[in-house]
Amino acid sequence: MSKNKINVAIVGATGVVGQEMAKILEERNFPVNSLKLLASKSSAGKKATFKNEELTIEELTANSFDNVDIALFSAGASVSSEYGPIAANKGVIVIDNSSAFRMDNNVPLVVPEVNPDLIHRAIKTGKGCIIANPNCSTIQLVVVLKPILENYGIKRVVISTYQAVSGAGKEGLDELQTQTQKTIDKEAITPKKFTHQIAFNCIPHCDTFLENDYTKEEMKLVNESRKILNFPELKITATAIRVPVFNSHSESVNIETEKAINISELKNILQNFEGLQVQDDPKSNIYPMAIHTANKDDVYVGRIRRDESIKNGINLWIVADNLRKGAALNAVQIAELSIK
Amino acid sequence: MSKNKINVAIVGATGVVGQEMAKILEERNFPVNSLKLLASKSSAGKKATFKNEELTIEELTANSFDNVDIALFSAGASVSSEYGPIAANKGVIVIDNSSAFRMDNNVPLVVPEVNPDLIHRAIKTGKGCIIANPNCSTIQLVVVLKPILENYGIKRVVISTYQAVSGAGKEGLDELQTQTQKTIDKEAITPKKFTHQIAFNCIPHCDTFLENDYTKEEMKLVNESRKILNFPELKITATAIRVPVFNSHSESVNIETEKAINISELKNILQNFEGLQVQDDPKSNIYPMAIHTANKDDVYVGRIRRDESIKNGINLWIVADNLRKGAALNAVQIAELSIK
Repeated sequence: MSKNKINVAIVGATGVVGQEMAKILEERNFPVNSLKLLASKSSAGKKATFKNEELTIEELTANSFDNVDIALFSAGASVSSEYGPIAANKGVIVIDNSSAFRMDNNVPLVVPEVNPDLIHRAIKTGKGCIIANPNCSTIQLVVVLKPILENYGIKRVVISTYQAVSGAGKEGLDELQTQTQKTIDKEAITPKKFTHQIAFNCIPHCDTFLENDYTKEEMKLVNESRKILNFPELKITATAIRVPVFNSHSESVNIETEKAINISELKNILQNFEGLQVQDDPKSNIYPMAIHTANKDDVYVGRIRRDESIKNGINLWIVADNLRKGAALNAVQIAELSIK
Repeated sequence: MSKNKINVAIVGATGVVGQEMAKILEERNFPVNSLKLLASKSSAGKKATFKNEELTIEELTANSFDNVDIALFSAGASVSSEYGPIAANKGVIVIDNSSAFRMDNNVPLVVPEVNPDLIHRAIKTGKGCIIANPNCSTIQLVVVLKPILENYGIKRVVISTYQAVSGAGKEGLDELQTQTQKTIDKEAITPKKFTHQIAFNCIPHCDTFLENDYTKEEMKLVNESRKILNFPELKITATAIRVPVFNSHSESVNIETEKAINISELKNILQNFEGLQVQDDPKSNIYPMAIHTANKDDVYVGRIRRDESIKNGINLWIVADNLRKGAALNAVQIAELSIK
């Protein structure tokens, strides 16, 4: 793309990720010529502000993509499945935050710090295309796995997640807020968005269950990591847990490497990797935490220590803002690279 | 011990575990002849109720143990270190919930479902003795590891915990309550009991840090499990995380076994093990959770599934009431066996 100013559309503009996308386009001074905010019919006519300008939310239709250069989709898999190809066929670069195309062999699944080269391979024809944005919990994981894979090789990864309610959108945020107040007021709770009470509880259930008794969220961590790292044989297993945190996912990760790791060398490697910040001074109570990571762009890693239960093993703790790096920011970073 | 009715003392009777101990003695109809409630000088004179009788909290002194048969200690390691041997020397069976004697080679570390035989080995002399009660997060883990070890052998265990604030006592409970209210009211938070804000946050830090950059809590999981299972070479690594849950610890556990596991056979084995309940019907959203486990005696296990990243591996999710099975109940169960 050679234009200086880009016509951008956001599909799902009223959702928490859609709103974050607009905010980040503005913050990072993305060269927006025009911004089209698209949503379902029920949201059409609502107003939103972008760069001090009032914009009107429009209903998403097959005609929404005329004159659009880049469309950022975050309205769920069924909307992406229907409208993603329509937009791409009209020459639009579709950057899709849903799960619809992530495992499609013809669609690159991109984290800019890990596999940015796939972006230009996808758009070099000058035609439209679809680029998939990975799942939130996967993005923050692979940003850490990539430099470890490059420097030490990876034999196996065991992950347990601590996932914020914002990963379930505005309804998730509202549910934690409402249930917390009701618990304090000693009122009865009726779960709506989550299967059980999330306030003051941990629910071992993110997204739906599959035939193998893993959740979709757990298998996204497995399958998307393999695809992004271009390592289909990666041995990796995951347990995904919803916790009563508003925003930012945390992950406890155990990694067995091929080569021996020197911990201080590893910390340097991680600190020097783009998009990563090492926060690791336990004696001063410094380690990554959800409350400090919200609204930050980087992925934070700490509690880095040798796992003595295996020859070459480490444990570490990864935290990132799941709405930003885990979704909206990663999509905007892909958009930035796509116009370079 | 051949007496029909036992003179019991609780040391730390005003703490959350001490209060739970009295409650459980009453619930389980432990044959109490007299109950002495001991605490620090500042609590002496306060009142408590046991079996509809009003008791007065007494100050703990070296003379507190005259005519006591069994003393349940839960007042921290320094109190146990000082008064545990005094009581034992007076012929008292000391059941100590602190970390003071857990790793002492001369003191048995007991979970009644796992290694009950050590109790009678300790008290068969008829003299006083000290029996250590393990750390909360360890107890619920070993109740699950024991039948797996017996039936399949264990090669390696990787644990990530989701620990409730009640593990830090009344101050922990108050801190979550206060900080939650302040967050809702948008007021500033000043952490007291925990190193950082616990409301709506996960803190990768339980107990203090050691030289190897693990926390004491993490190393308790490692060392106490090895001792209780009588398996000093057990390969086990842990990450302990404090979560904003009032009561009941959850644990995400990955286990590599020696032998191949048939999952439905394993579920039967676990369900038939004393003190364990399998809650595992993901299609009906049934799995263990902190909110359902509080005030329950058993350890709950679910999300039992094959780990495809390794030859013989499983993932599972363990939840138990850390004040009951993780502390007070386990101590009372030891007391029950000690008088049989």
